[in-house]
Amino acid sequence: MTDVAQAFAPGHVTGFFTVDRAEDPTTTGSTGAGLVLTDGVTVTVRRAEESAVYLGDERVSVAAVDRTLDALRATAEVHGDTDLPVGAGFGVSGALALGTALAANAVFERGLSAYELATIAHGAEVQAGTGLGDVVAQRHGGVPIRLEPGSPRHNRMDAVPARARVEYLTDGKLPTSDVIGGDTEALSHAGRRALSDLVREPTLATFFEASRGFARETGLLTGRVREVVTDVSEAGGEATMGMLGETVVALDTGLSDAGYDPEVCRIHEAGTTMLAPPGEPEPVE
Amino acid sequence: MTDVAQAFAPGHVTGFFTVDRAEDPTTTGSTGAGLVLTDGVTVTVRRAEESAVYLGDERVSVAAVDRTLDALRATAEVHGDTDLPVGAGFGVSGALALGTALAANAVFERGLSAYELATIAHGAEVQAGTGLGDVVAQRHGGVPIRLEPGSPRHNRMDAVPARARVEYLTDGKLPTSDVIGGDTEALSHAGRRALSDLVREPTLATFFEASRGFARETGLLTGRVREVVTDVSEAGGEATMGMLGETVVALDTGLSDAGYDPEVCRIHEAGTTMLAPPGEPEPVE
Repeated sequence: MTDVAQAFAPGHVTGFFTVDRAEDPTTTGSTGAGLVLTDGVTVTVRRAEESAVYLGDERVSVAAVDRTLDALRATAEVHGDTDLPVGAGFGVSGALALGTALAANAVFERGLSAYELATIAHGAEVQAGTGLGDVVAQRHGGVPIRLEPGSPRHNRMDAVPARARVEYLTDGKLPTSDVIGGDTEALSHAGRRALSDLVREPTLATFFEASRGFARETGLLTGRVREVVTDVSEAGGEATMGMLGETVVALDTGLSDAGYDPEVCRIHEAGTTMLAPPGEPEPVE
Repeated sequence: MTDVAQAFAPGHVTGFFTVDRAEDPTTTGSTGAGLVLTDGVTVTVRRAEESAVYLGDERVSVAAVDRTLDALRATAEVHGDTDLPVGAGFGVSGALALGTALAANAVFERGLSAYELATIAHGAEVQAGTGLGDVVAQRHGGVPIRLEPGSPRHNRMDAVPARARVEYLTDGKLPTSDVIGGDTEALSHAGRRALSDLVREPTLATFFEASRGFARETGLLTGRVREVVTDVSEAGGEATMGMLGETVVALDTGLSDAGYDPEVCRIHEAGTTMLAPPGEPEPVE
């Protein structure tokens, strides 16, 4: 029995995606691909008299977290700490939901499996309208390819076998729910084409190329992002737009080489994991 | 184009398993569960005039590696470096095969996906008769539960959401091929029962309990292992036999608390991953 538990959920930046709706939130989702990042969210869950969610020092309202706590019959304070920009396409809401699921499972001894917990967090994100693929990617780690939509208990995955430094710059927000809630047929068509390109050649170079094509075709590419991506290309690097945000993500030193001052992280090979309880050392010397 | 590439493949100690044979090596495999360990094998693959495999300083013959190189049409020197005991149930042959697949894919620019490469290594292990589930676990990381047999492109997975220190002691070898090549019906029966227990309650405590039951029921438990496992229990810890070896694996400080002097590592959350090329720094500050 414990009163507090912590999990780390990595960030996830999406290169391209489809929107696949079904009756059941756990089979609703998206195919596509993205990068799972070492920059992420540390989520602390603590038993409490009533539930509340904080991001940094600020009390926030995150529907995906509320739904996750409800599904686990957990009344708890949830604290998220992150260096990631919020609302800029890094999957912060998915990270909060999945981290909450893992940590609340430990605190309230729900005895659920990793994939069951990810299915709860995925369903919560879908119902909240804040994401379709982040939780699945954040459970997986690395450079996940979502071959089929839906939760980790329903979909099929693959991955690009690569490790890399990643740079990013962000400059504003594009609300996810506006885009994934609207007419998504053309978007999914472009997403399927990008997916088929990446499956044919699952490399980071193809991921960036397919993602750039998706951003152009769907009209999601904004003028400012296009400009930065072009600068990176002209400096010999690989970059694309992070979906859905006014965000540019680049391989290796792409943004630095083009004269920008980006955030730097790398691909996070593991998915979302438990941490040692706060105040206790990690369990290994 | 590169002449050399490196991958890290974590160790995997099996708690319980079934044997599931099919026509196709990629759908042959096993269900079961185990612990993926931070102690593993660093695999270096280098273009060469003819293929050769080394473990430490010694030239060795590892059929699963030969078959993996063949499948990738790769002529290469493969060097494995590991602190793990060989032939003691830590999945060293699987780690060598999977690490070789990833690194050879990079050197020879085969453009295969992470799951395709794991499928090649899994098929090679199955055909070599040296393992049924290690490669699948070593691609996954953490505490994987193999719900269905076969390669990562065919099976279904889940995992125990836990992080822990792991201790182990080993004292000899039990050749895998003798056990998995023989009559396996009773063994698979015990494995299915253990799996059903773990699925009902996917925690580390259940994993150890189900694994001990499997070791007893199948008669694989040796006298020496039984003695050490009992010592750990009496000291209040959790331990079980690592399949298939004269090996005891314990949670946290279980073996130390019982007065033994074990190797110490922890659960490795990520699966098998590429490393930066030898001599080059890791790609991130």
